[in-house]
Amino acid sequence: MQSEPEITTLSSSDIANMPQRNRAMFINSIGGFKSLVMVGTKSAEGVPNLAVFSSLVHLGAIPPVCGLVVRPGQEERHTLTNILNTSVYTLNHVHQSIVRQAHQTSARYPSNVSEFDAVGLTPQYKDNFEAPFVRESVVQLGLRLRQVVPLVINETTLVIGEIVHVSVPTRAIGENGFVDLESLGSLTVSGLDSYHRTAAITRLPYAKP
Amino acid sequence: MQSEPEITTLSSSDIANMPQRNRAMFINSIGGFKSLVMVGTKSAEGVPNLAVFSSLVHLGAIPPVCGLVVRPGQEERHTLTNILNTSVYTLNHVHQSIVRQAHQTSARYPSNVSEFDAVGLTPQYKDNFEAPFVRESVVQLGLRLRQVVPLVINETTLVIGEIVHVSVPTRAIGENGFVDLESLGSLTVSGLDSYHRTAAITRLPYAKP
Repeated sequence: MQSEPEITTLSSSDIANMPQRNRAMFINSIGGFKSLVMVGTKSAEGVPNLAVFSSLVHLGAIPPVCGLVVRPGQEERHTLTNILNTSVYTLNHVHQSIVRQAHQTSARYPSNVSEFDAVGLTPQYKDNFEAPFVRESVVQLGLRLRQVVPLVINETTLVIGEIVHVSVPTRAIGENGFVDLESLGSLTVSGLDSYHRTAAITRLPYAKP
Repeated sequence: MQSEPEITTLSSSDIANMPQRNRAMFINSIGGFKSLVMVGTKSAEGVPNLAVFSSLVHLGAIPPVCGLVVRPGQEERHTLTNILNTSVYTLNHVHQSIVRQAHQTSARYPSNVSEFDAVGLTPQYKDNFEAPFVRESVVQLGLRLRQVVPLVINETTLVIGEIVHVSVPTRAIGENGFVDLESLGSLTVSGLDSYHRTAAITRLPYAKP
């Protein structure tokens, strides 16, 4: 006989009454696994900045655009300020070999410190693109700012950018355009601090009724 | 001697010149692994609707809010119409045992057909919440609509909702609030059709300079 597992059910007030740090952990992890990228920017003073984000969302392929939610806190604000100043930024995948460095970019470094130097990653410049890529990242995207949408509900900002540069190992690109990120060791993240590899289950054909 | 892997580099015009379906696959997969949820709603006529989404993004914990990008296509439009009519919706995790059903909800069923019936999942109603949960999902969230943000760049819509109900197995909730989704078998998705389990690498402590 198999018994049902014990279920915790929470209402709005239960969530509101959680200790603040527990609530942040809980809400941040409950939605599912998330995209994991390091965002590379450069300040008006020329200082490279690198920050890890888990709030990337695909918006569409025509034009090729994605959104990044930036929180009002100090570290992410550096990234936003730089994007607003320069209109360009990079997205760089995280792999197991650099997961500690990626996580460490979330520390509150002053704006005159390059997180590349502080954590031990290498800024890479190419194609006359002003923002730094991460040399150690196997998948690198260059984006040009298209729209900034303030989300009044909690003072976050949705930064919408167009993908204008992609660098990816040729062997990972399938015939139909699919990029096999698992073969490249790209990681995903849960909550604030839990990093995961993936294990493919299946690909399914286009669904018809 | 180890040689560098061959790298494919794409510019804006290279991306624009890709065949349309390849470009959709390519851009949809290049950003990283994504959250995977089934969104449950009910139409004004009382027909339950279920649709799989990979565009969930965490916005913040105070209030507990998240965003869902809805595309202008017909299937997702049913979901949006229902949310606008009823102001409530559910998010339900996908597990290996129901991945085919989840994927099948992306087919273009007419609005008078319940995807629950069509794919073989069970609508579950509780707490006087109008929108249906998926009984087979181990993690279930109930949301109340807070804000609708049209994104003019490509006619998608960012639907912002507050989490007002959570149901999750007690054993997965850690002392600090972290929910161990991997232990619950929640899946992640890459591109349009590639489903993955996860394998934890590490959890890292709060980063300080």
